[in-house]
Amino acid sequence: MAENDESEIIEHHDDEEMEKRRTPRNHSHSFLESVSSPEKDGHSSTQSSHRLLAYSDALISIIATVMILPVAHTKFQDNEELKQSIQALLTTKVAVYLMTFLIVTVAWAAHIRLFQVIERIDDNLALLNLFSLMATFPNYILGILLFCACVMVIGLIQCLIVLYGFSRPFLLNDQIQMSENQAYYKQHILKVIMKVPIMCLFASIFSVIFFQLSYVILAIVIFLPYISGCLKWIRNKAIGGQVEDSPDSVLFYTYQLSEPLSKERVEAFSDGVYAIVATLLILDICEDNVPDPSVVKKEFNNSLVTALQQYGPEYLAYFGSFATVGLLWFVHHSLFLHVIKANRLMGLFNTFSLAFVGGLPLAYQLTHEFPRGSRNELEAVQISCVIIFFAGLFQLAMWVVALFTERETLHPYVRYGGREHTFMLAKLSLYPCVALGTFFLTCILSRFSAPIFHIMEIGVPFAFLLLRLLVRVALALLRWLFCSARNDLDNVPVVEEDSQLPIIDVVT
Amino acid sequence: MAENDESEIIEHHDDEEMEKRRTPRNHSHSFLESVSSPEKDGHSSTQSSHRLLAYSDALISIIATVMILPVAHTKFQDNEELKQSIQALLTTKVAVYLMTFLIVTVAWAAHIRLFQVIERIDDNLALLNLFSLMATFPNYILGILLFCACVMVIGLIQCLIVLYGFSRPFLLNDQIQMSENQAYYKQHILKVIMKVPIMCLFASIFSVIFFQLSYVILAIVIFLPYISGCLKWIRNKAIGGQVEDSPDSVLFYTYQLSEPLSKERVEAFSDGVYAIVATLLILDICEDNVPDPSVVKKEFNNSLVTALQQYGPEYLAYFGSFATVGLLWFVHHSLFLHVIKANRLMGLFNTFSLAFVGGLPLAYQLTHEFPRGSRNELEAVQISCVIIFFAGLFQLAMWVVALFTERETLHPYVRYGGREHTFMLAKLSLYPCVALGTFFLTCILSRFSAPIFHIMEIGVPFAFLLLRLLVRVALALLRWLFCSARNDLDNVPVVEEDSQLPIIDVVT
Repeated sequence: MAENDESEIIEHHDDEEMEKRRTPRNHSHSFLESVSSPEKDGHSSTQSSHRLLAYSDALISIIATVMILPVAHTKFQDNEELKQSIQALLTTKVAVYLMTFLIVTVAWAAHIRLFQVIERIDDNLALLNLFSLMATFPNYILGILLFCACVMVIGLIQCLIVLYGFSRPFLLNDQIQMSENQAYYKQHILKVIMKVPIMCLFASIFSVIFFQLSYVILAIVIFLPYISGCLKWIRNKAIGGQVEDSPDSVLFYTYQLSEPLSKERVEAFSDGVYAIVATLLILDICEDNVPDPSVVKKEFNNSLVTALQQYGPEYLAYFGSFATVGLLWFVHHSLFLHVIKANRLMGLFNTFSLAFVGGLPLAYQLTHEFPRGSRNELEAVQISCVIIFFAGLFQLAMWVVALFTERETLHPYVRYGGREHTFMLAKLSLYPCVALGTFFLTCILSRFSAPIFHIMEIGVPFAFLLLRLLVRVALALLRWLFCSARNDLDNVPVVEEDSQLPIIDVVT
Repeated sequence: MAENDESEIIEHHDDEEMEKRRTPRNHSHSFLESVSSPEKDGHSSTQSSHRLLAYSDALISIIATVMILPVAHTKFQDNEELKQSIQALLTTKVAVYLMTFLIVTVAWAAHIRLFQVIERIDDNLALLNLFSLMATFPNYILGILLFCACVMVIGLIQCLIVLYGFSRPFLLNDQIQMSENQAYYKQHILKVIMKVPIMCLFASIFSVIFFQLSYVILAIVIFLPYISGCLKWIRNKAIGGQVEDSPDSVLFYTYQLSEPLSKERVEAFSDGVYAIVATLLILDICEDNVPDPSVVKKEFNNSLVTALQQYGPEYLAYFGSFATVGLLWFVHHSLFLHVIKANRLMGLFNTFSLAFVGGLPLAYQLTHEFPRGSRNELEAVQISCVIIFFAGLFQLAMWVVALFTERETLHPYVRYGGREHTFMLAKLSLYPCVALGTFFLTCILSRFSAPIFHIMEIGVPFAFLLLRLLVRVALALLRWLFCSARNDLDNVPVVEEDSQLPIIDVVT
């Protein structure tokens, strides 16, 4: 009976807690609430949505990236010119890959917005979310019609989620819970959600009549937020600032596609892409380059070591590509340590960078497929360099954008420059520089293109390990040059720069 | 210049913060510290390790699961009996899959322990961790020798990580930072880490001399914590309780393999496995079951719809399998909502459950590969039922273990039973029951095995949607039966049970 009494006390306590939570006054400690939520409303069936979102991010990122497979698994004929095959590829498969990657990213961004409105979930919402993920089924290779059907199904399920959320207001965002005109929000959110499915409906109609137009419409879907942003800006400039007609502009804006994405979900999505790209490399090497026991017996006199020597270059290519993926993730990780929120442009650059990272399995396939020293091999290596170059360059672009909008996107402590900025810049520019260098080096020493490329891929990790040292040496060198040039004038600026960085020297 | 002043003030403030953090007295607000850490030591190069661990979890889970591919991609001959092929498979590939899955899980558990000691990371540690992930390269299909070499490389890198961590003590766990005999901890941790690589060294030596023994050693590696636990228990019983010789038993215990795993990393690992299994299903359907444009033109008179009708059963199997994976994740998610920590036995059951979930791509491949109504198809469906049954059963076993050790593993509010317990039990037992039912139904109606299986797979999501209702009806039915039986005696217990659940009725 003692246990029973205790349970009753706890329930009464819970009741009180519930009462407090229902009254929409205490939104100041929303952070603590989200941390300790399982304790509070464990008896009820609502849950914090954190793990559901992480799983959705993982799945969506994998679905976006997996589309590289039909590209990577295209078999090239040894005798035909790579340039021509690549051009043939570019017109179809690579374009489809890039387009679907971008569209899935748009769908993911919509998913973020949706769960910014719905902050708590219950079982039914979790199930609905799973259904919407199931419809993200990559049917897009089957034709534009089926793809549009999937997008419309997802849109419908998302509408269901919104309707369900508004029928149980305690699941919603605190701000909307407090607001008096929930009906207005509901309508507005439904309108935003239905934009993309309606575009897809048009695209599917046009796919029957006029094929090319439907692709144009899909391209519009990708850049919709940017286009509508431009239109609004033009309208504001033309008419003046009287178009703001929302009742509660702060929240209203939060649901707009122009708002910063939450850092955690961008990280989770990017992690998913990097992890699946690493996996695709593993899959490639597992499926194609593992000697069969029978083959080992027949060709290599039952000696596994001889067989593995045969496969040596493949393993080198594998380790190189895996290291590249890992280090690009590392750079991304370093970058996002300093970021609070990713704004719209950073999100776009991140997507582009990830799309090129998704091309790395293709680079891996290309670099070890062709006979040694052939013209095709040279071109394959150069394409790989281009892929790595752009993957790194868009990361650098993200950092530049972040620096330009630092008040909104960066941690306060990053804003004061110093040696850490130089170091960050060095980290970010290492891959673009090395890829560019390798590209031109292979142009000159075209016979040794593959060895150069592999040495580059395997050498870069060590460059990263030594980077801090290298940057320090480079800075010292610069300062020395600077001093010797201006020695006669004055050396105040150098001293000032030094005085900014005592803490780094203390720590490292 | 105003900005400069501001920066200096902030740096002084940071200096103070740093000083405070160095003195090991303030370990009471370690949670807040871990939340706000980027703000505090942003100028230094240390970072909170959260994202690194999430990425490691994703990659390790994917590597563990990917081993199902060689099993799933085995081509079965239509004319040979499935039973015999499966037996041939079982002796080699399935055994290798299960063993490597379990070993990778052990490696992952070791990774958890390692980063329980090292709580903060800097760039060099992040790079070392990436290298250790790179060596998790699934060479195990290439032979036991190469696999052992990889394990030893991982062990060496982990030792490097520990040595690096102890050379920079501010990266370590607060408890170890405070302790006076760090050297002892270092030795102890290195000893624990080196256990598995040394076992693998022996295994690789024996693989040359006596092949079977090396597999036995690898099996010992998997169950090492359980074996050493048993030995310790026996020794304690035999000699008495005087063997506890560690200087600080609380912390010492934390690094033991018998300690509960952190909930977050178990969730992250499980999410990774579920996501990659869903992806493998997508890969399968993308690679094999998408009609080629040329085939569509030739065989189906250029009509995509006709071609898709041909592939109908595959899509049905895909949706069914995808729904099964999603819902098993959903059950896992519901289960872990109530869990604080996963103890050793729960971790083992979780691993087993995940290993069976990893078998779902095989189930998918099997169920749509054979001709309709053949004996092989029946057996394929039954194997799929067995896989789903065990995946669900081990989840149920986890819950049972959690209930038995509820003080350690469950949230306090779960301990008082009530209708939520019934509901949880219903959720957990739905898949085992349905799989068992389908198994016996296909025994009777063997001609319709595949349709029954697909209807089951597609019907279960709706069962989950209606589950709350079903449970309520079942409870009411039970109560009614109970009442009518005891109507004459008394009905106090029924009323008492009712009085426990007012809050649920208020909320739902």
